[in-house]
Amino acid sequence: MFNEESHLKQPIRWAMVGGGRGSQIGYSHRNAALRDGLFKLVAGAFDLDAERGRDFAVNLGIDEERSYSTYKEMFAQEKLREDGIQAVSIATPNSTHFEICKAALEAELHVVCEKPLTFTTAEAYQLQALAKEKNRLIGVMYGYSGFPMVHQAREMVRRGDLGDIRIVNAQFAHGFHNEEYEKDDPSLKWRVTPAASGPTYVIGDIGTHAFYLCEMITEMEVESLCCMRQSFIESRAPLEDNAHVMLKFKGGAVGTLWASAVNSGSMHQQKIRVVGSKASIEWWDEFPNQLRYEVQGEAPRILDRGMGYLYQDDQGVSCNRVGGGHAEGYFESWANLYARFAHAFDAAERNDQTALAAIWLPGVEAGIEGTRLCEKCVESADNGSQWVNYKD
Amino acid sequence: MFNEESHLKQPIRWAMVGGGRGSQIGYSHRNAALRDGLFKLVAGAFDLDAERGRDFAVNLGIDEERSYSTYKEMFAQEKLREDGIQAVSIATPNSTHFEICKAALEAELHVVCEKPLTFTTAEAYQLQALAKEKNRLIGVMYGYSGFPMVHQAREMVRRGDLGDIRIVNAQFAHGFHNEEYEKDDPSLKWRVTPAASGPTYVIGDIGTHAFYLCEMITEMEVESLCCMRQSFIESRAPLEDNAHVMLKFKGGAVGTLWASAVNSGSMHQQKIRVVGSKASIEWWDEFPNQLRYEVQGEAPRILDRGMGYLYQDDQGVSCNRVGGGHAEGYFESWANLYARFAHAFDAAERNDQTALAAIWLPGVEAGIEGTRLCEKCVESADNGSQWVNYKD
Amino acid sequence: MFNEESHLKQPIRWAMVGGGRGSQIGYSHRNAALRDGLFKLVAGAFDLDAERGRDFAVNLGIDEERSYSTYKEMFAQEKLREDGIQAVSIATPNSTHFEICKAALEAELHVVCEKPLTFTTAEAYQLQALAKEKNRLIGVMYGYSGFPMVHQAREMVRRGDLGDIRIVNAQFAHGFHNEEYEKDDPSLKWRVTPAASGPTYVIGDIGTHAFYLCEMITEMEVESLCCMRQSFIESRAPLEDNAHVMLKFKGGAVGTLWASAVNSGSMHQQKIRVVGSKASIEWWDEFPNQLRYEVQGEAPRILDRGMGYLYQDDQGVSCNRVGGGHAEGYFESWANLYARFAHAFDAAERNDQTALAAIWLPGVEAGIEGTRLCEKCVESADNGSQWVNYKD
Amino acid sequence: MFNEESHLKQPIRWAMVGGGRGSQIGYSHRNAALRDGLFKLVAGAFDLDAERGRDFAVNLGIDEERSYSTYKEMFAQEKLREDGIQAVSIATPNSTHFEICKAALEAELHVVCEKPLTFTTAEAYQLQALAKEKNRLIGVMYGYSGFPMVHQAREMVRRGDLGDIRIVNAQFAHGFHNEEYEKDDPSLKWRVTPAASGPTYVIGDIGTHAFYLCEMITEMEVESLCCMRQSFIESRAPLEDNAHVMLKFKGGAVGTLWASAVNSGSMHQQKIRVVGSKASIEWWDEFPNQLRYEVQGEAPRILDRGMGYLYQDDQGVSCNRVGGGHAEGYFESWANLYARFAHAFDAAERNDQTALAAIWLPGVEAGIEGTRLCEKCVESADNGSQWVNYKD
Repeated sequence: MFNEESHLKQPIRWAMVGGGRGSQIGYSHRNAALRDGLFKLVAGAFDLDAERGRDFAVNLGIDEERSYSTYKEMFAQEKLREDGIQAVSIATPNSTHFEICKAALEAELHVVCEKPLTFTTAEAYQLQALAKEKNRLIGVMYGYSGFPMVHQAREMVRRGDLGDIRIVNAQFAHGFHNEEYEKDDPSLKWRVTPAASGPTYVIGDIGTHAFYLCEMITEMEVESLCCMRQSFIESRAPLEDNAHVMLKFKGGAVGTLWASAVNSGSMHQQKIRVVGSKASIEWWDEFPNQLRYEVQGEAPRILDRGMGYLYQDDQGVSCNRVGGGHAEGYFESWANLYARFAHAFDAAERNDQTALAAIWLPGVEAGIEGTRLCEKCVESADNGSQWVNYKD
Repeated sequence: MFNEESHLKQPIRWAMVGGGRGSQIGYSHRNAALRDGLFKLVAGAFDLDAERGRDFAVNLGIDEERSYSTYKEMFAQEKLREDGIQAVSIATPNSTHFEICKAALEAELHVVCEKPLTFTTAEAYQLQALAKEKNRLIGVMYGYSGFPMVHQAREMVRRGDLGDIRIVNAQFAHGFHNEEYEKDDPSLKWRVTPAASGPTYVIGDIGTHAFYLCEMITEMEVESLCCMRQSFIESRAPLEDNAHVMLKFKGGAVGTLWASAVNSGSMHQQKIRVVGSKASIEWWDEFPNQLRYEVQGEAPRILDRGMGYLYQDDQGVSCNRVGGGHAEGYFESWANLYARFAHAFDAAERNDQTALAAIWLPGVEAGIEGTRLCEKCVESADNGSQWVNYKD
Repeated sequence: MFNEESHLKQPIRWAMVGGGRGSQIGYSHRNAALRDGLFKLVAGAFDLDAERGRDFAVNLGIDEERSYSTYKEMFAQEKLREDGIQAVSIATPNSTHFEICKAALEAELHVVCEKPLTFTTAEAYQLQALAKEKNRLIGVMYGYSGFPMVHQAREMVRRGDLGDIRIVNAQFAHGFHNEEYEKDDPSLKWRVTPAASGPTYVIGDIGTHAFYLCEMITEMEVESLCCMRQSFIESRAPLEDNAHVMLKFKGGAVGTLWASAVNSGSMHQQKIRVVGSKASIEWWDEFPNQLRYEVQGEAPRILDRGMGYLYQDDQGVSCNRVGGGHAEGYFESWANLYARFAHAFDAAERNDQTALAAIWLPGVEAGIEGTRLCEKCVESADNGSQWVNYKD
Repeated sequence: MFNEESHLKQPIRWAMVGGGRGSQIGYSHRNAALRDGLFKLVAGAFDLDAERGRDFAVNLGIDEERSYSTYKEMFAQEKLREDGIQAVSIATPNSTHFEICKAALEAELHVVCEKPLTFTTAEAYQLQALAKEKNRLIGVMYGYSGFPMVHQAREMVRRGDLGDIRIVNAQFAHGFHNEEYEKDDPSLKWRVTPAASGPTYVIGDIGTHAFYLCEMITEMEVESLCCMRQSFIESRAPLEDNAHVMLKFKGGAVGTLWASAVNSGSMHQQKIRVVGSKASIEWWDEFPNQLRYEVQGEAPRILDRGMGYLYQDDQGVSCNRVGGGHAEGYFESWANLYARFAHAFDAAERNDQTALAAIWLPGVEAGIEGTRLCEKCVESADNGSQWVNYKD
């Protein structure tokens, strides 16, 4: 069970880049980071509009002098302070992730970055090397990977409850952009603009979430993939609003991935089904407290979060906050990840490698693979949907 | 509403080849054909073991003299009788479908055949030509296409309730053969034996069902496809126990098809989701009385069979047998199809083309496309899962 | 598994009273009785309008001379024939059940009667005595009691899988009569007319179904009950369109029963939940192939019809007609009951008490208890909803 | 949409009584109160074991000198401080609620109290009068009443979407205490000990939650009720571990309430169904983001939290924290209530009656009715389950 007394000696001094007024993702980051007293929000460069950003920062309780116009200024100024920030979260459009992450690492900050981490794996590897050099951590905000039942799924795979993994079907397919809503909505427009969004829309925006669940639950490596992508709203080309991927994993397992923003009438439909030689599991982010467990030849079972029959979480930071029956949700998943980030950042500062090794989190490797998925899907899709090797 | 007084002047005199003692599919055919008094079972060649076949036939109330050892004998003898059979249903292993259908048509019988109709499209076209020549009909037993809510789905697509169709995801993925159960079970063994089963196992056996739902509901034509198939139980090679297909339709829609016998813990999981520019529908054969209807921007609705807000079936043979709330099932779907077969056979005998045109049924074209699906999936899968044109 | 070769030496010669043209319940009886070749429909008095009844009978394939204007004429004439009817099903308005049943028994016929069997328990006991005297059987058409998963539930209770039964909550609560639709619909009007319907509307019409499931699954006896009933559509008074009942069973268990025709937007909502000291089960007639099984401290399981992990039906007549995954429904439940009626009638004719004892069916006792439920609910409700002893 | 910038000039200075180490309910209070920066936890009397309480308080960041051994000491000492507490939350066993609330009000504090507020309505009225006299507010922690979809339900009833309300069925029926687990667990033991728990166990503990949903959604008043209660674990007598209640409301509506701790295998099963003359709604706390909406004659709809087709919350404090599709849960419901408490306490301090009137919250009246429910259920149940008037 989650322990609210699980403190750090001092909360991590923390700032944000982006995620200002009106940003849902910004609120999600703050709400998660501040939930358990492990971070303290002391600075920010929230907005391209410096005035608005400052007003917002002050409203959040940040000293006016620590509300900065740009991230560069923030990193520079904070470095001069004794009580300067130790970590920063980046919630800006995709195109800026790489340069801000790089600057943050160079300023010797730990980073929490929205996905996709970068536009190219080359960039992502560069960040990885830089993080290593600076002895800093990068957490990537795969916000669905903090759900307790996702960790139960991972543990069941690890323990062999499913037998050998044979098939994984993953999808994140909402319907919110079935029409060209971006015409009148700049908060959508950038997502379908290559310069801001990168080489993909839905693959990077949501496909990476479902793919990451696949990675973390099964721990399998993709060998090759074949992708088709489309823009049902033509003005979105060359970016896609729908994509289907077939995957071959090392060792013989296969899978599919579906990412869509035009799945009319659907809310999220982020689902993953993992099929093993003995049993299957299925999880759906809209009903995150349940995990369906189907052993061949037995009656399917609905596992519920918080129950004694589940595996106890043993990865450094426990995650059930309330007993079974009560619904936990998205905010707890995020908070569980930020709790891991905090403990990991703290362990890194103390150079406590043992503690660090015990804390699972979505790190720079997760970011690299998300970027690779985008790269490889584009390579396949834009060459007649041919099969491509996942790692060259 | 279904009308039990909807008789023919005389029930169709009907026989079966195969489907003898212990055959579930045989019972399904008889139960469906005899349900509404439209067929009369008067002859049969039920079993390779003539003795057992005769005993079974007599038990079903067939005259001993009309229980035959072979279909050839049956077709020949019945032809000599004034009251000889008019139609025959074929429920034998796949490898025999072509030759028995051919013989039946040559004997001027109407045919109801299990799918896949043939092993090759060349054979299927041959049957189509022969049927035309003999003025006889071929019905193919896509047994899930008689459900009222499937027809509601088709009607919704036709009327444009979904807008333009963009995506279709179909699957039939059970888990009953996750292990090598066929070692000890001849009734499974033939399914994974190419000589008996044909060039595919799950694609033909169950994938064709889901694919047919896709065809009949959307009436779209496939342009090209890409298939990967595997044998997770190695001894099943070269036949597959799992297959994933990506589909491109004429006009720009895309889709996926998943067929599996190793989806551990799953019962049927035959599901189809059709995504349009305005709305989506989703149907699941395990809960066949419901159809989920999701209009973008509105709350999803669960349509129920038998309710006044549905489109009335107007395709010659109505299909609701009892008011909404009562669960109908698999047997009604089959019986609805056999009712259509009966009325169509009767119309054909009377050469009533108007009546015939008004009766929708899964006919020889449905059989051809099922065979083509198998052919093309094999062509793709066995050549590195490359894309292949659907029609050359 | 159901065996279609499970014949009688001769099918039972069978007739119907009521259930003529346009009657859904009439079709349900015929469809069920004729499904398995165990009954042969040879006579009928289908309609108060003799002409229409005759036309209907002929359309069903009955000899014109055996289509009768009244049940009295039918019972008298058939008695004179060597090949006269052996059994009759009664699908007339409630008010006529007693007299027709009585006449049928006096004519030495087996009877299948719609519920409620009679208006008073005194009448029901009279029928019971008469049936005994004439050595004839009465089956009461509790049409939901033939579902395989209901029998699985009963077997689980019997074997102690649930521990001691503590609580039963049963309901049948549809919304089809939320407004005064009967104003324009005579087929509804009689249900809210005491002279035709009896002392209750929803308690007798649908409450008895849910109550019978409770009785047959738990085999507990009611000790006392407390009922409130209302007419939300005032013109239905003194009959109720909604009723709630609290039940105390012998031995300490308790329960509730809800019957309603004004549960707006609901289809059937016939559900039963049985709570034991160790586990609970829950079944819903709209999804009849599933049975939820919840063992305290374990993950809930969804049992599916037709699976090997279920208890095998061992009550003389097996009931699964097709493998798991395929949806069975309402018609199979009815057919399963008629199969039991046929075998029981046949055993009774042969005076084979051993065979008879092995066949479970809803008999005259079930009819008596349904009538008693109505009587006692009215007694309670119409006296300030006081508690009344169930048996005096 | 929820606005994280919706601050008070100063957060409310806040303390807790009870809810110390290991208390799930204590964490829930703190997590909710501190979530949005509207309260600041500055003092506490967390534990009967003063040492343990102090250690816990310090761990939570409270000054050691403001960690008190008893609530009396806390109220007295804090009153002397300029920066003394303004509000207190009470999360102690039921038996102490009245005296602590009374003391808090006398110390001129706003109160948030766990339910049941008191053991008798006389006590509750006394607190109401005292609060009025001191111009202080009492919030009662009906923690499920903060869910956005519950407010949507209330708004739908208010706007007449359901027509006239006819029937309400509410239940909270878990299975966690199907055996005598309290033998070894003091945290359960007090719940079945009248001196600590009061005159009821499940009625007060969980029945009041479901009853409160009924009250707040329908705003109907009970006229009379009839209750039966049992102890399936005999040692729990005279307290009940299961209770069923029939309710008659003023104006003719009726309802049922089921509270149980022995509903084996169930998690919460807190559900409410409200049936109107035109439509019904149904909500389940385990899947709190969905609200089923069934209009008679139309297909049932599943409303989802956060969607544009819902009524906007207009009761002073908005409550959606993230867009539709993302799962919110129990913690957001609590936080939404604490946000209302904060704004109301603040308005009360400023004596801003307009602001106060605009803020809906579960206040002392809600507490009174919860206590009355317990009183009246006991009165009925312990007198042969007779009907009793709800208000004398």
